Amino acid sequence: MAIETPFITADGIVEIYSEGKFQGIVLIDRLNPPHGTALPGGFMDIGETIEACLKREMSEEIGLDVEIIKLLGLYSDPDRDPRFHTVSAVYVCRAEKFPTAGDDAKSTKVVPLNALEGESFVFDHGKIIADYLMGIPNNPSHPQKEEKEMRS
Amino acid sequence: MAIETPFITADGIVEIYSEGKFQGIVLIDRLNPPHGTALPGGFMDIGETIEACLKREMSEEIGLDVEIIKLLGLYSDPDRDPRFHTVSAVYVCRAEKFPTAGDDAKSTKVVPLNALEGESFVFDHGKIIADYLMGIPNNPSHPQKEEKEMRS
Repeated sequence: MAIETPFITADGIVEIYSEGKFQGIVLIDRLNPPHGTALPGGFMDIGETIEACLKREMSEEIGLDVEIIKLLGLYSDPDRDPRFHTVSAVYVCRAEKFPTAGDDAKSTKVVPLNALEGESFVFDHGKIIADYLMGIPNNPSHPQKEEKEMRS
Repeated sequence: MAIETPFITADGIVEIYSEGKFQGIVLIDRLNPPHGTALPGGFMDIGETIEACLKREMSEEIGLDVEIIKLLGLYSDPDRDPRFHTVSAVYVCRAEKFPTAGDDAKSTKVVPLNALEGESFVFDHGKIIADYLMGIPNNPSHPQKEEKEMRS
């Protein structure tokens, strides 16, 4: 039996804290196509766990040693990546330093939650961030906004 | 760039209810190697979402139209499958009928939660079920046992 399944990536919503105060989440400007604003992340290697992949990608792409908080969800729509079918495992994580661009990131920035609506994202990263802001993975109909208000 | 990532499966912890009363979860006896007791599930096809994969596999393998309750977690240890590196997305779901074996299931059974410890599982399905019983995905150190006691 020849098995073929979609590719897997790990992508991070990285919350940046400075002296205990929440500053915003990390976005990158992609070096490789598709170009545009995205969450940091990348393809999982055979032989590593998905959590190790996430930590490796965050180190390579935004220069941060992140602490994983939780799995936000799995994003698997066949059309979410224009190149091929890719399943993204999205983790919320945190770091205490500011990011520096590397690997597939041309540049990085830390964006406060109330400024995210002005961004234009590649892939389905806008939907992922909307789910993150709602506080409920894959369920945009649940208006749990306290988290946003507390933080901004 | 030649991309190669692990295979992806969707596996189900299917809670069976009869006349509103919880009966247990579905286990299968595997037809194909590795042989033994397992959760139902199977490989994701390119072009389907992970949720569609789960529902298709539950239909093919245990004859049930399941309702997805939540994503329990991602299991991605490189050694969890003796054949090759496979990432399992495990969903808790429910159905109102009893299962019937098909596809990779030689037989099926519905096992009450307090009888699960007597089972001998293939892959890391014993760990997955322990996580499910704890109520906290991927965190066996959190002793949230109320769910188990309420149900048994």
